[in-house]
Amino acid sequence: MDNGSSPSGEDFCLLKPCLETGILFFSNIPFIMIKGESPMGKMNGMNEAAFSAPLPLNRVQITDAFWQREMNLVRQVVIPYQWEALNDRIPGAAPSWWMHNMRAAAKVVAARKAGQEVHIRQKITGMVVEGPDLAEAEPDFFYGWAFQDSDGYKWIEAASYQLILQPDAALQAQVQQAVDAIIAAQEEDGYLDTFYTLTGRERAFTNLKDHHELYCFGHLVEGAIAWREATGREDLLDVARRFAACIGRRFAPGKERGCPGHEIAEMALLRLYETTGERQWLELANFFLDVRGTAPNTFALEENARRAAEGQPPLPVSGERYRYYQAHQPVRAQAEAVGHAVRQMYLASGMADAARVNQDEDMWAACEKIWNSTAREKMYVTGGVGATHVGEAFSRPFDLPADTAYSETCAAIGLVFFARRMLQAAPRAEYGDVMERALYNTVLAGMAMDGKSFFYVNPLEVDPAACESDERLAHVKPVRQKWFGCACCPPNVARLLSSLGNYAMTQGPDTLYFHLYISCEAETEWQGQSLRLGMEADLMRDGKIAVKVLSGTAHGTLAFRIPGWAAGRQISCSGKECREAEGYLYLTGNWQEGDVVSLAFEMPIQRMQGDPRVRETRHQLCYARGPMVYCAEEADNGQALHLLRALPQEEPVLSWREIGGVKLPALEVKGRRLENAASALYTPWQPPREEETTLTLIPYFAWCNRQPGEMRVWLYD
Amino acid sequence: MDNGSSPSGEDFCLLKPCLETGILFFSNIPFIMIKGESPMGKMNGMNEAAFSAPLPLNRVQITDAFWQREMNLVRQVVIPYQWEALNDRIPGAAPSWWMHNMRAAAKVVAARKAGQEVHIRQKITGMVVEGPDLAEAEPDFFYGWAFQDSDGYKWIEAASYQLILQPDAALQAQVQQAVDAIIAAQEEDGYLDTFYTLTGRERAFTNLKDHHELYCFGHLVEGAIAWREATGREDLLDVARRFAACIGRRFAPGKERGCPGHEIAEMALLRLYETTGERQWLELANFFLDVRGTAPNTFALEENARRAAEGQPPLPVSGERYRYYQAHQPVRAQAEAVGHAVRQMYLASGMADAARVNQDEDMWAACEKIWNSTAREKMYVTGGVGATHVGEAFSRPFDLPADTAYSETCAAIGLVFFARRMLQAAPRAEYGDVMERALYNTVLAGMAMDGKSFFYVNPLEVDPAACESDERLAHVKPVRQKWFGCACCPPNVARLLSSLGNYAMTQGPDTLYFHLYISCEAETEWQGQSLRLGMEADLMRDGKIAVKVLSGTAHGTLAFRIPGWAAGRQISCSGKECREAEGYLYLTGNWQEGDVVSLAFEMPIQRMQGDPRVRETRHQLCYARGPMVYCAEEADNGQALHLLRALPQEEPVLSWREIGGVKLPALEVKGRRLENAASALYTPWQPPREEETTLTLIPYFAWCNRQPGEMRVWLYD
Repeated sequence: MDNGSSPSGEDFCLLKPCLETGILFFSNIPFIMIKGESPMGKMNGMNEAAFSAPLPLNRVQITDAFWQREMNLVRQVVIPYQWEALNDRIPGAAPSWWMHNMRAAAKVVAARKAGQEVHIRQKITGMVVEGPDLAEAEPDFFYGWAFQDSDGYKWIEAASYQLILQPDAALQAQVQQAVDAIIAAQEEDGYLDTFYTLTGRERAFTNLKDHHELYCFGHLVEGAIAWREATGREDLLDVARRFAACIGRRFAPGKERGCPGHEIAEMALLRLYETTGERQWLELANFFLDVRGTAPNTFALEENARRAAEGQPPLPVSGERYRYYQAHQPVRAQAEAVGHAVRQMYLASGMADAARVNQDEDMWAACEKIWNSTAREKMYVTGGVGATHVGEAFSRPFDLPADTAYSETCAAIGLVFFARRMLQAAPRAEYGDVMERALYNTVLAGMAMDGKSFFYVNPLEVDPAACESDERLAHVKPVRQKWFGCACCPPNVARLLSSLGNYAMTQGPDTLYFHLYISCEAETEWQGQSLRLGMEADLMRDGKIAVKVLSGTAHGTLAFRIPGWAAGRQISCSGKECREAEGYLYLTGNWQEGDVVSLAFEMPIQRMQGDPRVRETRHQLCYARGPMVYCAEEADNGQALHLLRALPQEEPVLSWREIGGVKLPALEVKGRRLENAASALYTPWQPPREEETTLTLIPYFAWCNRQPGEMRVWLYD
Repeated sequence: MDNGSSPSGEDFCLLKPCLETGILFFSNIPFIMIKGESPMGKMNGMNEAAFSAPLPLNRVQITDAFWQREMNLVRQVVIPYQWEALNDRIPGAAPSWWMHNMRAAAKVVAARKAGQEVHIRQKITGMVVEGPDLAEAEPDFFYGWAFQDSDGYKWIEAASYQLILQPDAALQAQVQQAVDAIIAAQEEDGYLDTFYTLTGRERAFTNLKDHHELYCFGHLVEGAIAWREATGREDLLDVARRFAACIGRRFAPGKERGCPGHEIAEMALLRLYETTGERQWLELANFFLDVRGTAPNTFALEENARRAAEGQPPLPVSGERYRYYQAHQPVRAQAEAVGHAVRQMYLASGMADAARVNQDEDMWAACEKIWNSTAREKMYVTGGVGATHVGEAFSRPFDLPADTAYSETCAAIGLVFFARRMLQAAPRAEYGDVMERALYNTVLAGMAMDGKSFFYVNPLEVDPAACESDERLAHVKPVRQKWFGCACCPPNVARLLSSLGNYAMTQGPDTLYFHLYISCEAETEWQGQSLRLGMEADLMRDGKIAVKVLSGTAHGTLAFRIPGWAAGRQISCSGKECREAEGYLYLTGNWQEGDVVSLAFEMPIQRMQGDPRVRETRHQLCYARGPMVYCAEEADNGQALHLLRALPQEEPVLSWREIGGVKLPALEVKGRRLENAASALYTPWQPPREEETTLTLIPYFAWCNRQPGEMRVWLYD
């Protein structure tokens, strides 16, 4: 076994002393890792020995003060609020219609089961049915977006994770109420989608491209698995299985071709397979992946069937029109992150799972290409993806505008999903770095520090006056919103934060991987032997991490990600074999109670710049410390933030600030402020007239938790 | 009479020597003038003695090599092409439908005159009727935009100006054919709009907001006046008068309130009044101006009438909804350039005429405010206006993005109209500077140097790859287009260039004002005495200007604009009284054959910067020389122009280049080119790795006359 090589490509032979009680120190690691060799010496191929899976949530207890607070917000604020929203009990807010639709569908289903003839009065072909005032709602009408069912499924998933973390009889009763509503709305053949049950079942599965039946199905599966994990109850999982079977009876090799317009069913089915071992779900996932983007394009066929019904001529059945849906090419031929960003991330997550489960080298190669396109060419420094509001989509490489950014919260969540799945297949620090970057910046920014409001769009530069008057910025909100008509982001934040333990570490046959440094206690099992471990970390403070074996004894490996932001590191560990590969540090040996690993990752304040091909960051820099990217807010720095310059040669100073009731590491940066007016609109060039100033920067995730105002991540140099 | 004061506010007593044969030299004039005192000591009030009017076109002969070439292009290329287009004879191009609509309307009109009942088969409420293939066109249907009539009127105007410049029997016969078609399409009561004649006359004047009847009327008047100037023929002017009378019978004090949705009728009516002396047209213009934006808003009333017919509840009758139309406030209360940029410029032009003609101080104050908003807060350095494609409109102050710019060619033409009218009321160099800036940059850029293609949108930064793939840039074309479905810009360029003499100078009771420095011969009359003058200038080469009295004798004043770009000046003139005010130099005395005025305006290569409030020009500069702004093109500088820096401390060098068959003054500028790639998307900040380079800059108007490629006006410093 080789010693690996350093991420910067330099020789790395100094690792040996770690076998004793050595203390090592390396520096100048680049911020984003470049490719090294894989642990087993394989570069691009799949390597089963390195595969890993998330720990079951009941084996991870997050104890980290910062993250516990976030998770508690979800429990105490977000989940109760969303339950009220699902039941249309939020005064002043537009109804969600979730429970309404479930109950209405249940009546139809019950009538059908009782052999009564059901008369469908509502004929809808669009994506949304704008509802009236609650009091005027028709009891048997569907209201809201076609994919409204998914809201409740996401809520069930988040609430179930919270029940795993902390039992709560009242919450469990609410989830059971939701589950019962779903059970009642499922048709006898397993079909479950209130939109079509209420507006015409005969059209079910005829518009997979837009109508999100398979998207709702995917969220149902995720919710059902979480609910079983929390309570052991199979009721919702049985609903999901029956719906899956219903889908599988229609879509399968030799039967009808089709695939989801909004992906998620792929990764949900793979999870269902990995949870239950029932092979038919893997086959259905594979079918959806294999059909996607192959000729004749199934979305084109669907559209042509609808056009034929309206007497319109057919469209060509080529795929190029379906880039938005990532259905322009067979998935194994896809090499660039394109189209709707959330869909792309969910598809890539499913592909990464499928590559690992099937050990599909071609699929894996496509995953790596899509990863590289995403993380090396199309990602904001905040871990946000999807630069354009047109189609909520990926733009061309290196097009990363700050003020018109889309960077949807859900897309960053999708990137976390994708990164975790890439890590499960191949532990490389780059995947963990990006997961951490998305999580600590865009995902966290998506929710206010009181849990009461949310960003859907996460710009890197905001001028509220511009947002309010400029239709080109209509998608950018200068303050978080309480709820959205299309309420995808808040429940997505809730389910991710509630299952943080699934991202912090994964477990291979004899290895426990630490991807994120979040204080926790966790239990792992290696070939029948179990260990209980405690991690102490506080990335708000510094990069010092201690892992102790609290109980148990086992032979195996603890693997630690060497963060891209670590300018240097000290490792202290006794009597274990130590090696490094692809940015992970592997400590192997017999572990027993009392063993301690101490890691100290140097966490300097970093001044970062964008690749020169990123036009939008020209002549600018931003500040980062550990995983956190910083921003300047009007609250600290006054108006017209574009007049500020930061002096990159000057050393910034850490300075703690309380924001939203939390003490956060802020920065003081020496800079200059340009005079704010000229004698005319255009004047002869002259050296800038500036005054000295000190900029105060706060972590990006904490922006807009005081008064609304301007914000900038990138500062002129 | 005082000596005036220098534009920079400094004492200006050195002017006296000019009374002899003095040579004067002053420097450090700011690029855009700030307010000084007016010639008569009045600041903001109207001053009748300074009023002036354009010279009749037949008294101005442009002899300037550069401009003659542009005007010849219009004659030889643009006007013949447009005639074919109006007649739907351009193979491969979408039909214009102009002649088709006129002929179809003429049949309806003839039938009505013959007392036959006319059955209208076409009921249209929208703005556009998409036409079929020519062969399938219904002979009695209207096709194209509701305002399609105006295309031909603009063509008649341009062609008529060309006939003044140079007789051409064939062209005159074509114009006569167009005029005859119009005459035949006019209804018995004077009404003339083929859209309503063909789709339902009973709805005429019920949608002034959108359906552009009064816009077409305005262009008809402009065309009719030009045609009479060219030929003495009253036929089209009589058509215009009858239509005007028809309008005036409906809209007048005490009758129906209403005003144009797309302005131009105001300035056209004022021109009709000034041309004919017929007071009723002034009254109609005043009525339209006075009604605009007053409560209850006439556009709201119109809309509510339409809504009532459809059973919809009325909208509030407040004006705020009509900012786009500049109908949100009474015109005298308007202080900011807002809404659709062409409309705003046309309205302001009409307001400036009305202020002068009526000596309306409040109207004048509003004109000055709109001017200041336009030229001091919302104008590109190229003289383009209207920064946002959303509504082709003005954005907020100082929002002047380079790559997403709209900057419509027609809006720059509108700014030229507005500036000339401001000059007519108050000769201030700022107005002339802006007129010249718009003309030499955006207007010229609007047409290819072979006259065969046109820009509608004039960005200051272009990356063709981005334009082709990015819907946010869908309005930006990286190459000029042959023709447009909404063909407003090409004929507008044609009519402006063909009447250049109307902008170069204006004449007051005893003063001839030179606003632009374009070689020409002109005849002026002061109180019955006439002078024939010859100007020699070549701003492509330098700022040296000579004006000679070729014949005649008269007592009066020659007034010369001191360009904002002149870094210094020498004036040589014998035996005349000399004074300066508001950036104009006034030479008064007895003029006779052989008198010569020599002006030498220093024309250095200037490095310009934007007001710090313009976020988009931060850390950037651009180059200008005389009235011309420069740009870097890929053809000279390679790809990725954003990687270039210009060194403002280095002196640029003039270097002539042939582009499109014309020798143009290019610039060589010392600069740096940043390395084009990094090891990762985000890396620790380091001082830029650059190599030395020399940038080649060409006049902005000449961009995209070689191979298509990137272009940038603003360069990083």
